[in-house]
Amino acid sequence: MRDAYVVGAGQTAFGAFPEASYRSLFATAVDRALASAPDLDADDIDEAVVGTLGVGGRQLGLSGPAVTEHAGVSAPTTRVENACAASGYAVRNAVQAVKSGMADVALAGGFEVMTDLSGDAAKYWLGVSGETEWERLTGATFAGTYAQMASAYLDAHDATVEDFSRAAVKNHANGARNPHAHLGFECSLADATGAATVADPLTLYHCCPTSDGAAAVVVASGEVAESVDADAVRVAGVGAAGDRVGLFERDTYTSIPASRDAADAAYEMAGIGPGDVDIAEVHDCFAVAELLAYEDLGFCERGEAPGLLREGATDRDGRLPVNVSGGLKAKGHPIGATGAGQVVELWKQLTGNAGDRQVEGVEVGLAHNVGGSGGAAVVTVLEGQR
Amino acid sequence: MRDAYVVGAGQTAFGAFPEASYRSLFATAVDRALASAPDLDADDIDEAVVGTLGVGGRQLGLSGPAVTEHAGVSAPTTRVENACAASGYAVRNAVQAVKSGMADVALAGGFEVMTDLSGDAAKYWLGVSGETEWERLTGATFAGTYAQMASAYLDAHDATVEDFSRAAVKNHANGARNPHAHLGFECSLADATGAATVADPLTLYHCCPTSDGAAAVVVASGEVAESVDADAVRVAGVGAAGDRVGLFERDTYTSIPASRDAADAAYEMAGIGPGDVDIAEVHDCFAVAELLAYEDLGFCERGEAPGLLREGATDRDGRLPVNVSGGLKAKGHPIGATGAGQVVELWKQLTGNAGDRQVEGVEVGLAHNVGGSGGAAVVTVLEGQR
Repeated sequence: MRDAYVVGAGQTAFGAFPEASYRSLFATAVDRALASAPDLDADDIDEAVVGTLGVGGRQLGLSGPAVTEHAGVSAPTTRVENACAASGYAVRNAVQAVKSGMADVALAGGFEVMTDLSGDAAKYWLGVSGETEWERLTGATFAGTYAQMASAYLDAHDATVEDFSRAAVKNHANGARNPHAHLGFECSLADATGAATVADPLTLYHCCPTSDGAAAVVVASGEVAESVDADAVRVAGVGAAGDRVGLFERDTYTSIPASRDAADAAYEMAGIGPGDVDIAEVHDCFAVAELLAYEDLGFCERGEAPGLLREGATDRDGRLPVNVSGGLKAKGHPIGATGAGQVVELWKQLTGNAGDRQVEGVEVGLAHNVGGSGGAAVVTVLEGQR
Repeated sequence: MRDAYVVGAGQTAFGAFPEASYRSLFATAVDRALASAPDLDADDIDEAVVGTLGVGGRQLGLSGPAVTEHAGVSAPTTRVENACAASGYAVRNAVQAVKSGMADVALAGGFEVMTDLSGDAAKYWLGVSGETEWERLTGATFAGTYAQMASAYLDAHDATVEDFSRAAVKNHANGARNPHAHLGFECSLADATGAATVADPLTLYHCCPTSDGAAAVVVASGEVAESVDADAVRVAGVGAAGDRVGLFERDTYTSIPASRDAADAAYEMAGIGPGDVDIAEVHDCFAVAELLAYEDLGFCERGEAPGLLREGATDRDGRLPVNVSGGLKAKGHPIGATGAGQVVELWKQLTGNAGDRQVEGVEVGLAHNVGGSGGAAVVTVLEGQR
């Protein structure tokens, strides 16, 4: 099995861009990814994989080719959709394409445009990734299903609503240093806990925003990585796992088993364990999801996630910085762009390209991307140069 | 690059099944594929790739995991959407997964449920794969864009509308021998040419139906293929290519360049040329598309496709049988199932499992699957045992 490397990465800012089209956002992300690997251009791309949910239904079919053509990429393009994990899976497919020997350079990216929708339309388009018959059509929203997880977590462990808020406060503090963040401002524990309830016990600050944006990553073989003038990080492991789409069909509400299984597969492929991870981007679509991620990814034992947050272990100056980008909470969550965007952040951190939010001395990064309320998950482990 | 083999394949009948759900159709296809490889069961599957356009919007997000869970497949699942080429690309992704070493057994399949929609809804859901801004929203349908190609073909070459009808007559004759065909009856040249006009010069018999159905293929490594009691055919080549989504943005209307480029890539990978192909399933969504396929795939020179049809070269007893299954025209076209269904047919033909429609002595088969009016295409070359 030959190695694969991320040799370039770029993204648009995440935010509300009513003047931008999904095509122009995607093209900007590709331009920036290629600019970060100056010896490569669009003609060098052998394969493209594009993640999008297709929110708004602008180009529901052939939505991958529709954006790569605008970005000047003529390589065969596959659209991948795995709800909010679409472009995490796109990165994994690009890695498979390179490892298979069928591509030397593969582009993986994603996009979404969401903020121009009415409230009802946004609710519909977010809901389509929920289990349809017994969840969405009976009125459950994702805030609702994650609130069920939050309630179960509070019941099961020595945790409080303030612990959820701590994840939000940390991620907003990080987002305030990220020029690409949608909600780049700080918030206090009181702000977060006292905000309006969205789905009890989750407040507005425990929920990520809907965002517009795009992200792209260039994956290449070892031969290409050595031959080009680019900062390369090795894709040491990439694991994916599925589960029942409906939360109600699972045995546990205090874990996302697909996250655990995806992480196990990625660790095994990389030959490392969770203790080897230096920096992580995790899927904090709702604050409770960040706590579950700590436990599912093996950063701590069950019930210990609040302790990590209370002691600041996952702050940007802690022993394992998590969501230095701001996470979904503050960086934003343009669905199809999120997974690739996590890899963009890690590539920047591992290659010293993260500007004001650079964390020093990080060599192993982990990206964790979840689809729906856990019907799909993908974990990518990147290793920088030592 | 390690080899990949198709070691099992199965499908539902294609047709109108108002009582069936997309989940049950997909599960049936998977059951049949696994039954054809008796040493393998669902737990042996390391990776699943599911193609669907999501017609009807039943489960628009996480639609891959939603069907694999019902089929008893717990492997990580990626949904692929490339319009009508969705599951041709799914097969290609499964091949990449096996060749990458990340999977030993990969399931590729697809499904669609279309016949329960109203006429307006069906028109919308078919249209979503067209170029949105300048084609679909200005009223162009796929019958319309292919009619433009048909008109251009009649202008450019010594061809008549009867030549389009010949493709339909041949495919209906083939479909009449296929118990899985949606329109399993014969038609005459006069029937086909004299039928109601859908989009001039294309008549009703020059257009494929909308269908319900599912198909699945089991792709495995050489080691697995040798160790199991299954009929295996080697995936000798698989090529894909993209193009502008909008027909109006292309230089030619008498070729689908993505088909040509995908075929070139597949031939190169397989180390063969078009003259080595013994049997083919091509994407005859509209009759003109079958003629363009003959030329784009290199079965004849430009303008010579009518001659092949007139002389019966592509009849089931001709020198290069094409669409022995009945093709999209008579077998049917449940969008997401079509590409995998082509590979199912070829696997059956190359392993002697094709029953009444078995063509004897075929060793090299080619599947050709197109997305939209040519924004994406994928060609797969399979080699049976000699």
